Amino acid sequence: MTSFSNTRLLIKILASSTLLGCSDVGPNNRNEVEITQNTETSVLADENIQKIYDTALNGLHSYEITKSLTTEIGPRLAGSRNEARARKWATKKMNSLGFKKVRIDNFDIPGWERGVETASIMSPSRQQLFVTALGGSVATPAKGVRADVAYFENFDALTSSPESGLDGKIVYISGKMKKARDGAGYGPANQKRRSGATEAAKRGAAAVIIRSVGTDSHRFPHTGQMRYQDGVKKIPIGAISAPDADQLDRIFKDGKNVKLNLRLTPKSVGPKPSGNVIGEIVGSEKPDEIILIGAHLDSWDLGTGAIDDGAGVGIAMGAAQVLLESGLKPKRTIRVVLYGSEEVGLLGGKAYAEQHNDELANHIVATESDFGAGKIYGFQAGKTTGSKLFVSNYASMFKGLNIAAIEGESDGGPDIGPIAALGVPTVRLNQDGTDYFDLHHTPDDTFDKIDPDAMAQNVAAYATLIWLASETDIDLRGQ
Amino acid sequence: MTSFSNTRLLIKILASSTLLGCSDVGPNNRNEVEITQNTETSVLADENIQKIYDTALNGLHSYEITKSLTTEIGPRLAGSRNEARARKWATKKMNSLGFKKVRIDNFDIPGWERGVETASIMSPSRQQLFVTALGGSVATPAKGVRADVAYFENFDALTSSPESGLDGKIVYISGKMKKARDGAGYGPANQKRRSGATEAAKRGAAAVIIRSVGTDSHRFPHTGQMRYQDGVKKIPIGAISAPDADQLDRIFKDGKNVKLNLRLTPKSVGPKPSGNVIGEIVGSEKPDEIILIGAHLDSWDLGTGAIDDGAGVGIAMGAAQVLLESGLKPKRTIRVVLYGSEEVGLLGGKAYAEQHNDELANHIVATESDFGAGKIYGFQAGKTTGSKLFVSNYASMFKGLNIAAIEGESDGGPDIGPIAALGVPTVRLNQDGTDYFDLHHTPDDTFDKIDPDAMAQNVAAYATLIWLASETDIDLRGQ
Repeated sequence: MTSFSNTRLLIKILASSTLLGCSDVGPNNRNEVEITQNTETSVLADENIQKIYDTALNGLHSYEITKSLTTEIGPRLAGSRNEARARKWATKKMNSLGFKKVRIDNFDIPGWERGVETASIMSPSRQQLFVTALGGSVATPAKGVRADVAYFENFDALTSSPESGLDGKIVYISGKMKKARDGAGYGPANQKRRSGATEAAKRGAAAVIIRSVGTDSHRFPHTGQMRYQDGVKKIPIGAISAPDADQLDRIFKDGKNVKLNLRLTPKSVGPKPSGNVIGEIVGSEKPDEIILIGAHLDSWDLGTGAIDDGAGVGIAMGAAQVLLESGLKPKRTIRVVLYGSEEVGLLGGKAYAEQHNDELANHIVATESDFGAGKIYGFQAGKTTGSKLFVSNYASMFKGLNIAAIEGESDGGPDIGPIAALGVPTVRLNQDGTDYFDLHHTPDDTFDKIDPDAMAQNVAAYATLIWLASETDIDLRGQ
Repeated sequence: MTSFSNTRLLIKILASSTLLGCSDVGPNNRNEVEITQNTETSVLADENIQKIYDTALNGLHSYEITKSLTTEIGPRLAGSRNEARARKWATKKMNSLGFKKVRIDNFDIPGWERGVETASIMSPSRQQLFVTALGGSVATPAKGVRADVAYFENFDALTSSPESGLDGKIVYISGKMKKARDGAGYGPANQKRRSGATEAAKRGAAAVIIRSVGTDSHRFPHTGQMRYQDGVKKIPIGAISAPDADQLDRIFKDGKNVKLNLRLTPKSVGPKPSGNVIGEIVGSEKPDEIILIGAHLDSWDLGTGAIDDGAGVGIAMGAAQVLLESGLKPKRTIRVVLYGSEEVGLLGGKAYAEQHNDELANHIVATESDFGAGKIYGFQAGKTTGSKLFVSNYASMFKGLNIAAIEGESDGGPDIGPIAALGVPTVRLNQDGTDYFDLHHTPDDTFDKIDPDAMAQNVAAYATLIWLASETDIDLRGQ
């Protein structure tokens, strides 16, 4: 046990933590509070953890990595040329950081590309709406669908309506998503995105528009993957921005009939190459035992994938980089996995589970950063008793970062879901996602939204986590 | 003098004034503080002013008018069918509110319409930029301009560069606009929008893109009118969004060459009809003496023109409506003028000055609301000594609205500029425009951005102003 020798640093962390919730903080807003006397000691239990803190919090590891990815490559749609370029970028970056065994696990995916997307209210007054096709949607006829609109105030109103009567209509599903630190509003709001087309098609509709699954009040529609149900006609589905949804809601509230012209021309484009990029710090004592830290390299095509999930890429790589820079030699292997094709159905995570099936028993624990660039407030176990023991045993190590143990079980993250289902234990560091869905899946997901202080705190936390996982004697698989 | 009998109302005003600067406040955020004891008396000097306050602050006059205009008509580009529909809407609304002598002053304008607008970085990596043509811009060739980009960090860097050497290039002019309550950053930032095409064309450039004149960090480019200089080649000019400008700046900072493809297909479309809509409360004693309160009915085509200038339309009409509802009989005539075609060169203001030239001597004072929907903090004279006397004499009447006299001379507003130049005195109520340029001239200028409390404060202030101007014995023309 060492006393905390860098009090200025600690106070900086505590002070800047009050910034949580600010979405638009740039590099010039670093909130530093100088003090001259010690206010706390023994916050850090181990000199190695202190090294990690010092290295991470005084650096811009993840910030620079995310900047490089989003600036040099930009959008990275699953299966696209840019996603392939991002894989090359990642292997080069991993090699330059000193990672070992850098390689790409290739796999193919069904391709999908966005086309023209326009929507206009034709009556009662001609007005353009901002619309985007949901991922996987089929196209409208080339000239669009021109039809009366059937209004549903939310997804439940549609599903509880009779299974007929919407022949040839454009269904509009409204309903706002609630903001929450843990993103709890996403699941309920997402039902209309996932299943809106199927439920409307069952009732005879020709097409669907939904109020975007998001929490902002800007004119950007949010995209995201949708699904068709086997045996139900596939109809096109798009999302309109929140202000456009407000506008439609007002017009319907006035009792007016609405006629809309909707044109979406996305298309399936056959098999496309994707892949997971892997790099390691090889364990000094137990090289076959794997601590997996993941994020996903692909993004939606509208923005440059900064918070989803360029930030996670930066955090995962940055955390391993911090261990290297700190001169620490983890006993177990730290494996950074940058998944491909997450957005279109966790295809990289599924491919990893298949391709690495024979070594999953050696995966000690997996963790993932895929919830933006906000500060971390919680440390949460997965489903095993061992992971709960791990969290309770080491929660104090995160106190200096203003991170506390969180009750309950987490699923770890989307990409590590497939290996978690096959028995790999997970732990999670919970980011503040209050503003995440203001930007998520929109053109506005760009690098300028990222706060370097929050990124540094994330890197410190993840570096601490993977270090502890590498050294621990706790059996995380223990039931 | 009467004591202030509605203390709850006063406290509500004072409390809600702390909300200044919040851009995204909806109807549910009304900030009401109830108290049971009197804390202030004699704030209001006149029982008629108190009637105005009571009527305006307990109503939704401007809020409902702006909602109706932006919802029922939507965007209102100068010379467009929607602008014509807005004139009909306005005459109907004025008649329904009880205004008299409602009519349209017609005039023609040179039409301009937006076309396709796309921009992509072709190298070093293919990325889409969000671009919009500036108003009045000529088109690129149908397939676009594909060229190397010449970077200038701001407009001064371009104008101080040699008048040659940019043959065939696309000039990119960066440079951020500063936020300010009074919008002081707009003039300097706007130089590149007004004159960027001319300065680049003098140096041989094929086209220009500028960092949007705006203060937000969203992916919306800001449009606005540009000008060509006689004798200099007309080249196309567009604005890119702030995050896209940040992206380009980072790429140039990395020392990379940038190749861009820019496609803009706006076109001039010959003479189009526009007009000013006028309605009055006829003066009870001096019907020929006119108090003019203005705003503009047209908007840019990207948003629905809520803050620019649907809010002003609501405030100007709402202020007159409040006088009618309060049962006040102004001695002079209150003339509400909703100008057409402001955005494309103050054409409605110029037409009014011509068409009403013979009665300008009877215009006692003119005022205008065209700076968004933020709360008013200041009351400012125009250029005459009489208007300064008017402001200093009546400033106390606005104290209950948290409005204070402001030093210096204002120009009153854009649409009343042409009549001010011909000798009509002006006064101005200064709105907080800190967030105005986050939305101004973008697709994000929509009704959901408007705060009903701020609107009510504006209406109370303008109703007070036009009432005082109707009753005053001060000669505002006095030098």
